[in-house]
Amino acid sequence: MTQNIYDNPEFFEGYGKLPRSIEGLAGAAEWPALRALLPVPGGLRILDLGCGYGWFCRWVREHGAAQVLGVDVSERMLARARATTTDAAITYQRVDLERVELPEASFDLAYSSLALHYIVGLPGLLAKVHRALVPGGHFIFSVEHPIVTAPAHPGWTETAGRKTWPVDDYFAEGPRVTDWIAKGVIKQHRTIGTYLKLLLRLGFTIGHIEEWGPTDEQIAADPTLAQERLRPPFLLVAARRS
Amino acid sequence: MTQNIYDNPEFFEGYGKLPRSIEGLAGAAEWPALRALLPVPGGLRILDLGCGYGWFCRWVREHGAAQVLGVDVSERMLARARATTTDAAITYQRVDLERVELPEASFDLAYSSLALHYIVGLPGLLAKVHRALVPGGHFIFSVEHPIVTAPAHPGWTETAGRKTWPVDDYFAEGPRVTDWIAKGVIKQHRTIGTYLKLLLRLGFTIGHIEEWGPTDEQIAADPTLAQERLRPPFLLVAARRS
Repeated sequence: MTQNIYDNPEFFEGYGKLPRSIEGLAGAAEWPALRALLPVPGGLRILDLGCGYGWFCRWVREHGAAQVLGVDVSERMLARARATTTDAAITYQRVDLERVELPEASFDLAYSSLALHYIVGLPGLLAKVHRALVPGGHFIFSVEHPIVTAPAHPGWTETAGRKTWPVDDYFAEGPRVTDWIAKGVIKQHRTIGTYLKLLLRLGFTIGHIEEWGPTDEQIAADPTLAQERLRPPFLLVAARRS
Repeated sequence: MTQNIYDNPEFFEGYGKLPRSIEGLAGAAEWPALRALLPVPGGLRILDLGCGYGWFCRWVREHGAAQVLGVDVSERMLARARATTTDAAITYQRVDLERVELPEASFDLAYSSLALHYIVGLPGLLAKVHRALVPGGHFIFSVEHPIVTAPAHPGWTETAGRKTWPVDDYFAEGPRVTDWIAKGVIKQHRTIGTYLKLLLRLGFTIGHIEEWGPTDEQIAADPTLAQERLRPPFLLVAARRS
Protein backbone atom coordinates (compact mmCIF):
# COMPACT_ATOMS: atom_id res chain seq x y z
CA MET A 1 0.00 0.00 0.00
CA THR A 2 1.22 3.48 -0.87
CA GLN A 3 2.17 5.86 1.95
CA ASN A 4 -0.14 8.86 2.41
CA ILE A 5 2.53 11.36 3.43
CA TYR A 6 0.49 14.38 2.33
CA ASP A 7 -1.82 13.92 5.30
CA ASN A 8 1.14 14.03 7.69
CA PRO A 9 0.64 17.47 9.35
CA GLU A 10 4.35 18.38 9.21
CA PHE A 11 4.61 17.37 5.55
CA PHE A 12 1.35 19.10 4.62
CA GLU A 13 2.47 22.33 6.21
CA GLY A 14 5.91 22.24 4.58
CA TYR A 15 4.50 21.26 1.18
CA GLY A 16 2.09 24.18 1.41
CA LYS A 17 5.07 26.56 1.40
CA LEU A 18 6.51 25.37 -1.92
CA PRO A 19 6.13 27.76 -4.87
CA ARG A 20 3.98 25.20 -6.67
CA SER A 21 1.61 25.11 -3.70
CA ILE A 22 1.32 28.87 -3.44
CA GLU A 23 1.46 29.89 -7.10
CA GLY A 24 -0.06 26.75 -8.59
CA LEU A 25 0.97 25.69 -12.08
CA ALA A 26 2.93 28.92 -12.59
CA GLY A 27 5.09 27.94 -9.61
CA ALA A 28 6.10 24.62 -11.18
CA ALA A 29 9.13 25.12 -13.43
CA GLU A 30 8.33 22.03 -15.50
CA TRP A 31 4.73 23.11 -16.19
CA PRO A 32 5.42 24.85 -19.55
CA ALA A 33 7.03 21.64 -20.84
CA LEU A 34 4.24 19.46 -19.49
CA ARG A 35 1.60 21.80 -20.87
CA ALA A 36 3.21 21.56 -24.31
CA LEU A 37 2.48 17.82 -24.29
CA LEU A 38 -1.23 18.24 -23.56
CA PRO A 39 -4.00 18.11 -26.12
CA VAL A 40 -6.27 21.17 -26.23
CA PRO A 41 -8.55 20.57 -23.23
CA GLY A 42 -11.71 21.94 -24.92
CA GLY A 43 -14.55 19.43 -24.67
CA LEU A 44 -12.42 16.66 -23.15
CA ARG A 45 -13.26 14.38 -20.24
CA ILE A 46 -10.20 14.51 -18.03
CA LEU A 47 -8.82 12.42 -15.18
CA ASP A 48 -6.18 13.85 -12.82
CA LEU A 49 -4.39 11.21 -10.78
CA GLY A 50 -2.98 12.78 -7.63
CA CYS A 51 -4.79 16.08 -8.16
CA GLY A 52 -3.62 17.65 -4.88
CA TYR A 53 -4.99 21.16 -4.47
CA GLY A 54 -6.79 20.87 -7.81
CA TRP A 55 -4.80 23.48 -9.74
CA PHE A 56 -4.76 21.38 -12.90
CA CYS A 57 -8.45 20.44 -12.62
CA ARG A 58 -9.38 24.12 -12.47
CA TRP A 59 -6.96 25.03 -15.28
CA VAL A 60 -8.41 22.53 -17.73
CA ARG A 61 -11.94 23.69 -16.91
CA GLU A 62 -10.84 27.29 -17.58
CA HIS A 63 -9.63 25.94 -20.93
CA GLY A 64 -12.91 24.31 -21.81
CA ALA A 65 -12.71 20.75 -20.47
CA ALA A 66 -16.13 19.11 -20.38
CA GLN A 67 -15.73 17.07 -17.20
CA VAL A 68 -12.88 16.63 -14.75
CA LEU A 69 -12.36 13.95 -12.15
CA GLY A 70 -9.57 14.64 -9.67
CA VAL A 71 -8.53 11.80 -7.41
CA ASP A 72 -6.11 11.95 -4.51
CA VAL A 73 -5.41 10.03 -1.33
CA SER A 74 -4.90 13.15 0.77
CA GLU A 75 -7.91 14.35 2.71
CA ARG A 76 -6.19 17.61 3.56
CA MET A 77 -5.36 18.41 -0.04
CA LEU A 78 -8.82 17.54 -1.29
CA ALA A 79 -10.37 19.75 1.38
CA ARG A 80 -8.38 22.64 -0.07
CA ALA A 81 -9.24 21.62 -3.63
CA ARG A 82 -12.97 21.49 -2.85
CA ALA A 83 -12.84 24.84 -1.07
CA THR A 84 -11.47 26.59 -4.16
CA THR A 85 -14.22 25.74 -6.61
CA THR A 86 -17.98 25.45 -6.96
CA ASP A 87 -17.68 24.12 -10.51
CA ALA A 88 -20.11 21.23 -10.90
CA ALA A 89 -18.07 19.82 -13.78
CA ILE A 90 -15.19 19.09 -11.42
CA THR A 91 -15.52 16.05 -9.16
CA TYR A 92 -13.01 15.24 -6.46
CA GLN A 93 -12.72 11.75 -5.09
CA ARG A 94 -10.62 10.65 -2.17
CA VAL A 95 -9.07 7.27 -2.83
CA ASP A 96 -5.77 5.44 -2.67
CA LEU A 97 -4.71 5.51 -6.33
CA GLU A 98 -3.93 1.80 -6.15
CA ARG A 99 -7.57 1.11 -5.31
CA VAL A 100 -9.22 3.64 -7.60
CA GLU A 101 -12.05 2.27 -9.71
CA LEU A 102 -12.45 3.94 -13.05
CA PRO A 103 -15.23 3.53 -15.62
CA GLU A 104 -14.16 1.96 -18.91
CA ALA A 105 -13.37 4.10 -21.97
CA SER A 106 -14.63 7.26 -20.26
CA PHE A 107 -11.72 9.72 -20.44
CA ASP A 108 -10.00 11.51 -23.32
CA LEU A 109 -7.04 12.52 -21.18
CA ALA A 110 -5.47 11.02 -18.09
CA TYR A 111 -2.96 13.29 -16.39
CA SER A 112 -0.69 12.90 -13.41
CA SER A 113 1.87 15.32 -12.04
CA LEU A 114 4.60 13.97 -9.75
CA ALA A 115 2.39 11.35 -8.15
CA LEU A 116 3.15 8.02 -9.81
CA HIS A 117 6.57 7.63 -8.18
CA TYR A 118 4.75 7.16 -4.88
CA ILE A 119 2.61 4.29 -6.11
CA VAL A 120 3.57 0.76 -5.07
CA GLY A 121 1.12 -1.04 -7.35
CA LEU A 122 1.87 1.00 -10.45
CA PRO A 123 1.33 -1.79 -13.05
CA GLY A 124 -2.25 -2.27 -11.81
CA LEU A 125 -2.96 1.45 -11.83
CA LEU A 126 -1.59 1.89 -15.36
CA ALA A 127 -3.76 -0.99 -16.57
CA LYS A 128 -6.79 0.78 -15.09
CA VAL A 129 -5.78 4.05 -16.75
CA HIS A 130 -5.46 2.26 -20.09
CA ARG A 131 -8.95 0.77 -19.76
CA ALA A 132 -10.40 4.09 -18.59
CA LEU A 133 -9.18 5.93 -21.69
CA VAL A 134 -11.05 5.96 -24.96
CA PRO A 135 -9.09 4.58 -27.95
CA GLY A 136 -6.77 7.39 -28.99
CA GLY A 137 -6.98 8.88 -25.51
CA HIS A 138 -3.96 10.67 -24.08
CA PHE A 139 -1.95 9.79 -21.00
CA ILE A 140 0.42 12.59 -19.96
CA PHE A 141 2.42 12.35 -16.77
CA SER A 142 5.49 13.50 -14.90
CA VAL A 143 7.48 11.61 -12.28
CA GLU A 144 10.71 12.22 -10.44
CA HIS A 145 13.46 11.14 -12.80
CA PRO A 146 14.94 7.71 -12.01
CA ILE A 147 18.38 9.29 -11.72
CA VAL A 148 16.94 11.20 -8.75
CA THR A 149 15.13 8.28 -7.14
CA ALA A 150 17.84 5.65 -7.70
CA PRO A 151 20.45 6.43 -5.03
CA ALA A 152 20.32 4.74 -1.66
CA HIS A 153 21.33 8.08 -0.14
CA PRO A 154 20.26 10.79 -2.58
CA GLY A 155 21.80 14.24 -2.44
CA TRP A 156 24.28 16.51 -4.13
CA THR A 157 27.94 15.97 -3.42
CA GLU A 158 31.29 17.04 -4.81
CA THR A 159 33.56 14.94 -6.98
CA ALA A 160 36.92 16.36 -8.07
CA GLY A 161 35.76 19.86 -7.15
CA ARG A 162 32.56 19.63 -9.17
CA LYS A 163 29.00 19.40 -7.93
CA THR A 164 27.71 15.95 -8.85
CA TRP A 165 24.70 13.70 -8.26
CA PRO A 166 26.01 10.28 -7.24
CA VAL A 167 24.00 7.43 -8.75
CA ASP A 168 23.94 3.91 -7.35
CA ASP A 169 21.39 1.09 -6.99
CA TYR A 170 19.82 2.07 -10.33
CA PHE A 171 18.57 -1.44 -11.05
CA ALA A 172 17.40 -2.05 -7.47
CA GLU A 173 13.81 -0.99 -8.03
CA GLY A 174 11.57 -0.47 -5.04
CA PRO A 175 11.10 1.84 -2.07
CA ARG A 176 13.45 4.69 -1.22
CA VAL A 177 13.04 6.43 2.11
CA THR A 178 14.09 10.07 2.02
CA ASP A 179 13.78 13.06 4.27
CA TRP A 180 12.03 15.61 2.06
CA ILE A 181 9.93 18.15 3.96
CA ALA A 182 9.25 15.46 6.58
CA LYS A 183 11.27 12.45 7.65
CA GLY A 184 10.57 9.07 6.15
CA VAL A 185 8.94 9.95 2.83
CA ILE A 186 8.67 6.76 0.78
CA LYS A 187 9.07 6.93 -2.99
CA GLN A 188 9.22 4.02 -5.42
CA HIS A 189 12.27 3.90 -7.66
CA ARG A 190 11.71 2.53 -11.15
CA THR A 191 13.99 2.76 -14.18
CA ILE A 192 13.00 4.66 -17.32
CA GLY A 193 13.03 1.29 -19.05
CA THR A 194 10.42 -0.03 -16.60
CA TYR A 195 8.11 2.99 -16.96
CA LEU A 196 8.17 2.70 -20.72
CA LYS A 197 7.92 -1.08 -20.77
CA LEU A 198 4.82 -0.96 -18.55
CA LEU A 199 3.20 1.46 -21.00
CA LEU A 200 4.22 -0.41 -24.15
CA ARG A 201 3.02 -3.77 -22.79
CA LEU A 202 -0.42 -2.33 -22.10
CA GLY A 203 -0.66 -1.14 -25.69
CA PHE A 204 0.15 2.51 -25.18
CA THR A 205 2.03 4.25 -27.99
CA ILE A 206 4.85 6.48 -26.81
CA GLY A 207 4.49 9.96 -28.28
CA HIS A 208 7.07 11.94 -26.37
CA ILE A 209 9.69 11.45 -23.69
CA GLU A 210 11.16 14.48 -22.02
CA GLU A 211 13.89 14.49 -19.45
CA TRP A 212 13.04 17.89 -18.14
CA GLY A 213 15.60 20.52 -17.22
CA PRO A 214 15.21 24.28 -16.76
CA THR A 215 15.71 26.63 -19.69
CA ASP A 216 18.34 29.38 -19.71
CA GLU A 217 15.55 31.92 -19.16
CA GLN A 218 14.29 30.04 -16.12
CA ILE A 219 17.78 29.88 -14.64
CA ALA A 220 18.29 33.60 -15.27
CA ALA A 221 15.06 34.27 -13.37
CA ASP A 222 15.89 31.79 -10.59
CA PRO A 223 19.60 30.89 -10.36
CA THR A 224 18.87 28.15 -7.81
CA LEU A 225 17.51 26.13 -10.73
CA ALA A 226 20.96 25.87 -12.34
CA GLN A 227 21.81 22.62 -10.57
CA GLU A 228 18.81 20.98 -12.22
CA ARG A 229 20.77 21.02 -15.49
CA LEU A 230 23.43 18.76 -13.96
CA ARG A 231 20.96 15.86 -13.81
CA PRO A 232 17.30 15.70 -14.83
CA PRO A 233 14.88 16.22 -11.93
CA PHE A 234 11.78 15.04 -13.78
CA LEU A 235 10.70 12.65 -16.49
CA LEU A 236 7.74 13.73 -18.65
CA VAL A 237 5.90 11.18 -20.79
CA ALA A 238 3.16 11.50 -23.38
CA ALA A 239 1.46 8.29 -24.49
CA ARG A 240 -1.76 7.35 -26.23
CA ARG A 241 -4.06 4.41 -26.01
CA SER A 242 -3.86 2.82 -29.46
CA MET B 1 33.18 14.99 -38.39
CA THR B 2 33.29 11.90 -36.21
CA GLN B 3 36.63 10.73 -34.83
CA ASN B 4 37.95 7.44 -36.25
CA ILE B 5 39.59 6.17 -33.08
CA TYR B 6 39.41 2.51 -34.14
CA ASP B 7 42.18 3.11 -36.68
CA ASN B 8 44.44 4.47 -33.95
CA PRO B 9 47.00 1.61 -33.61
CA GLU B 10 47.07 1.78 -29.80
CA PHE B 11 43.27 1.78 -29.58
CA PHE B 12 42.90 -0.98 -32.18
CA GLU B 13 45.31 -3.20 -30.31
CA GLY B 14 43.66 -2.58 -26.95
CA TYR B 15 40.15 -3.00 -28.33
CA GLY B 16 41.23 -6.30 -29.86
CA LYS B 17 41.84 -7.66 -26.36
CA LEU B 18 38.30 -7.07 -25.09
CA PRO B 19 36.17 -10.19 -24.59
CA ARG B 20 33.73 -8.94 -27.25
CA SER B 21 36.60 -8.69 -29.75
CA ILE B 22 37.91 -12.17 -29.01
CA GLU B 23 34.68 -14.07 -28.38
CA GLY B 24 32.39 -12.01 -30.60
CA LEU B 25 28.73 -11.70 -29.67
CA ALA B 26 29.12 -14.26 -26.86
CA GLY B 27 31.66 -11.94 -25.26
CA ALA B 28 29.22 -9.02 -25.08
CA ALA B 29 27.16 -9.24 -21.90
CA GLU B 30 24.32 -7.20 -23.39
CA TRP B 31 24.02 -9.38 -26.49
CA PRO B 32 21.27 -11.71 -25.15
CA ALA B 33 19.10 -8.64 -24.39
CA LEU B 34 19.84 -7.06 -27.76
CA ARG B 35 19.20 -10.34 -29.56
CA ALA B 36 15.81 -10.60 -27.85
CA LEU B 37 14.80 -7.36 -29.58
CA LEU B 38 15.68 -8.59 -33.07
CA PRO B 39 13.22 -9.94 -35.61
CA VAL B 40 14.01 -13.43 -36.95
CA PRO B 41 16.77 -12.70 -39.51
CA GLY B 42 15.59 -15.29 -42.05
CA GLY B 43 15.16 -13.72 -45.50
CA LEU B 44 15.82 -10.17 -44.28
CA ARG B 45 17.99 -7.49 -45.90
CA ILE B 46 20.09 -6.16 -43.07
CA LEU B 47 22.24 -3.09 -42.49
CA ASP B 48 24.85 -3.02 -39.71
CA LEU B 49 26.04 0.49 -38.84
CA GLY B 50 29.48 0.29 -37.26
CA CYS B 51 29.92 -3.38 -38.08
CA GLY B 52 33.48 -3.61 -36.74
CA TYR B 53 34.88 -7.11 -37.11
CA GLY B 54 31.63 -8.27 -38.72
CA TRP B 55 30.49 -10.62 -35.94
CA PHE B 56 26.86 -9.55 -36.30
CA CYS B 57 26.93 -9.66 -40.12
CA ARG B 58 28.10 -13.26 -40.01
CA TRP B 59 25.63 -14.18 -37.27
CA VAL B 60 22.59 -12.96 -39.18
CA ARG B 61 23.77 -14.80 -42.30
CA GLU B 62 24.10 -17.99 -40.22
CA HIS B 63 20.50 -17.31 -39.22
CA GLY B 64 19.24 -16.97 -42.76
CA ALA B 65 19.54 -13.27 -43.61
CA ALA B 66 19.22 -12.69 -47.37
CA GLN B 67 21.69 -9.84 -47.74
CA VAL B 68 23.87 -7.97 -45.27
CA LEU B 69 25.61 -4.64 -45.66
CA GLY B 70 28.15 -3.82 -42.95
CA VAL B 71 29.52 -0.29 -42.87
CA ASP B 72 32.28 1.03 -40.70
CA VAL B 73 34.79 3.87 -40.76
CA SER B 74 37.66 1.70 -39.56
CA GLU B 75 39.91 0.29 -42.25
CA ARG B 76 41.61 -2.00 -39.75
CA MET B 77 38.36 -3.47 -38.48
CA LEU B 78 36.98 -3.99 -41.98
CA ALA B 79 40.18 -5.72 -43.02
CA ARG B 80 39.57 -8.23 -40.23
CA ALA B 81 35.88 -8.48 -41.13
CA ARG B 82 36.66 -9.21 -44.78
CA ALA B 83 39.31 -11.77 -43.86
CA THR B 84 36.80 -13.83 -41.88
CA THR B 85 34.26 -14.51 -44.60
CA THR B 86 33.90 -15.41 -48.27
CA ASP B 87 30.11 -15.05 -48.12
CA ALA B 88 28.95 -13.19 -51.22
CA ALA B 89 25.77 -12.08 -49.47
CA ILE B 90 27.79 -9.96 -47.03
CA THR B 91 29.12 -6.65 -48.31
CA TYR B 92 31.44 -4.45 -46.30
CA GLN B 93 31.78 -0.78 -47.05
CA ARG B 94 34.23 1.61 -45.54
CA VAL B 95 32.63 4.97 -44.93
CA ASP B 96 32.23 7.63 -42.27
CA LEU B 97 28.72 6.87 -40.99
CA GLU B 98 27.83 10.53 -41.28
CA ARG B 99 28.49 10.37 -45.01
CA VAL B 100 27.04 6.97 -45.75
CA GLU B 101 24.66 6.85 -48.71
CA LEU B 102 21.94 4.31 -48.41
CA PRO B 103 19.42 3.20 -51.05
CA GLU B 104 15.80 4.03 -50.22
CA ALA B 105 13.45 1.45 -48.68
CA SER B 106 16.00 -1.31 -49.13
CA PHE B 107 16.46 -2.83 -45.68
CA ASP B 108 14.19 -4.79 -43.37
CA LEU B 109 16.45 -4.30 -40.38
CA ALA B 110 18.99 -1.64 -39.47
CA TYR B 111 21.20 -2.56 -36.55
CA SER B 112 23.92 -0.76 -34.66
CA SER B 113 25.87 -1.89 -31.64
CA LEU B 114 27.65 0.73 -29.52
CA ALA B 115 28.49 2.97 -32.46
CA LEU B 116 25.95 5.80 -32.54
CA HIS B 117 27.35 7.56 -29.46
CA TYR B 118 30.42 8.38 -31.55
CA ILE B 119 28.46 10.10 -34.31
CA VAL B 120 28.45 13.90 -34.42
CA GLY B 121 25.80 14.24 -37.12
CA LEU B 122 23.39 11.74 -35.64
CA PRO B 123 20.14 13.44 -36.76
CA GLY B 124 21.22 13.21 -40.40
CA LEU B 125 22.26 9.58 -40.07
CA LEU B 126 18.98 8.61 -38.40
CA ALA B 127 17.05 10.31 -41.19
CA LYS B 128 19.01 8.24 -43.74
CA VAL B 129 18.31 5.05 -41.76
CA HIS B 130 14.61 5.88 -41.72
CA ARG B 131 14.56 6.37 -45.50
CA ALA B 132 16.65 3.24 -46.05
CA LEU B 133 14.16 1.03 -44.19
CA VAL B 134 11.06 -0.41 -45.78
CA PRO B 135 7.79 0.60 -44.09
CA GLY B 136 7.52 -1.62 -41.02
CA GLY B 137 11.30 -2.11 -41.04
CA HIS B 138 13.12 -2.52 -37.73
CA PHE B 139 15.80 -0.32 -36.23
CA ILE B 140 17.53 -1.94 -33.26
CA PHE B 141 20.50 -0.29 -31.62
CA SER B 142 22.56 0.03 -28.48
CA VAL B 143 24.53 3.03 -27.25
CA GLU B 144 26.40 3.88 -24.11
CA HIS B 145 23.79 5.00 -21.61
CA PRO B 146 23.55 8.78 -21.17
CA ILE B 147 24.23 8.37 -17.45
CA VAL B 148 27.64 7.02 -18.50
CA THR B 149 28.40 9.64 -21.12
CA ALA B 150 27.09 12.69 -19.22
CA PRO B 151 29.84 13.41 -16.67
CA ALA B 152 32.60 15.86 -17.48
CA HIS B 153 34.96 13.48 -15.68
CA PRO B 154 33.40 10.02 -15.80
CA GLY B 155 34.48 7.32 -13.40
CA TRP B 156 33.44 5.45 -10.29
CA THR B 157 33.91 7.18 -6.99
CA GLU B 158 32.84 6.74 -3.39
CA THR B 159 30.12 8.71 -1.64
CA ALA B 160 29.45 8.06 2.04
CA GLY B 161 31.34 4.77 1.82
CA ARG B 162 29.36 3.52 -1.18
CA LYS B 163 30.53 3.07 -4.75
CA THR B 164 28.70 5.64 -6.86
CA TRP B 165 28.69 7.03 -10.40
CA PRO B 166 28.69 10.84 -10.15
CA VAL B 167 26.48 12.49 -12.75
CA ASP B 168 26.83 16.08 -13.86
CA ASP B 169 26.42 18.06 -17.09
CA TYR B 170 23.52 15.81 -18.12
CA PHE B 171 21.88 18.49 -20.23
CA ALA B 172 25.15 19.71 -21.76
CA GLU B 173 24.97 17.59 -24.88
CA GLY B 174 28.02 17.28 -27.07
CA PRO B 175 31.53 15.83 -27.09
CA ARG B 176 33.10 14.08 -24.10
CA VAL B 177 36.79 13.30 -24.25
CA THR B 178 37.71 10.22 -22.23
CA ASP B 179 40.70 8.00 -21.85
CA TRP B 180 39.34 4.55 -22.70
CA ILE B 181 41.88 2.12 -24.13
CA ALA B 182 43.65 5.14 -25.68
CA LYS B 183 43.82 8.77 -24.64
CA GLY B 184 41.44 11.28 -26.16
CA VAL B 185 38.53 9.10 -27.26
CA ILE B 186 35.67 11.40 -28.26
CA LYS B 187 32.10 10.32 -27.59
CA GLN B 188 28.96 12.38 -28.09
CA HIS B 189 26.71 12.72 -25.05
CA ARG B 190 22.98 12.89 -25.73
CA THR B 191 20.11 12.49 -23.30
CA ILE B 192 17.65 9.61 -23.52
CA GLY B 193 15.05 12.25 -24.31
CA THR B 194 17.07 13.39 -27.34
CA TYR B 195 17.61 9.87 -28.70
CA LEU B 196 13.90 9.12 -28.47
CA LYS B 197 12.81 12.52 -29.76
CA LEU B 198 15.02 12.14 -32.84
CA LEU B 199 13.37 8.81 -33.58
CA LEU B 200 9.80 9.96 -32.91
CA ARG B 201 10.19 13.07 -35.05
CA LEU B 202 11.31 10.97 -38.02
CA GLY B 203 8.21 8.84 -37.71
CA PHE B 204 9.70 5.85 -35.95
CA THR B 205 7.46 4.00 -33.50
CA ILE B 206 9.18 3.06 -30.26
CA GLY B 207 8.75 -0.65 -29.57
CA HIS B 208 11.09 -1.23 -26.66
CA ILE B 209 13.48 0.69 -24.45
CA GLU B 210 15.90 -1.25 -22.32
CA GLU B 211 18.33 0.22 -19.87
CA TRP B 212 20.55 -2.79 -19.83
CA GLY B 213 22.14 -4.25 -16.72
CA PRO B 214 23.63 -7.69 -16.09
CA THR B 215 21.46 -10.52 -14.77
CA ASP B 216 22.18 -12.31 -11.49
CA GLU B 217 23.45 -15.28 -13.51
CA GLN B 218 25.86 -13.07 -15.45
CA ILE B 219 27.20 -11.55 -12.22
CA ALA B 220 27.61 -15.01 -10.68
CA ALA B 221 29.68 -16.01 -13.73
CA ASP B 222 31.64 -12.73 -13.78
CA PRO B 223 31.54 -10.81 -10.48
CA THR B 224 33.24 -7.78 -12.08
CA LEU B 225 29.88 -7.10 -13.77
CA ALA B 226 28.21 -6.34 -10.40
CA GLN B 227 29.01 -2.62 -10.59
CA GLU B 228 27.00 -2.40 -13.81
CA ARG B 229 23.85 -2.78 -11.72
CA LEU B 230 24.64 0.47 -9.89
CA ARG B 231 24.03 2.49 -13.05
CA PRO B 232 23.06 1.33 -16.54
CA PRO B 233 26.03 0.95 -18.91
CA PHE B 234 23.96 0.66 -22.09
CA LEU B 235 20.71 1.83 -23.61
CA LEU B 236 18.98 -0.57 -26.01
CA VAL B 237 16.25 0.68 -28.34
CA ALA B 238 13.89 -1.09 -30.71
CA ALA B 239 11.97 1.08 -33.15
CA ARG B 240 10.07 0.56 -36.39
CA ARG B 241 9.50 2.68 -39.42
CA SER B 242 5.73 3.24 -39.45
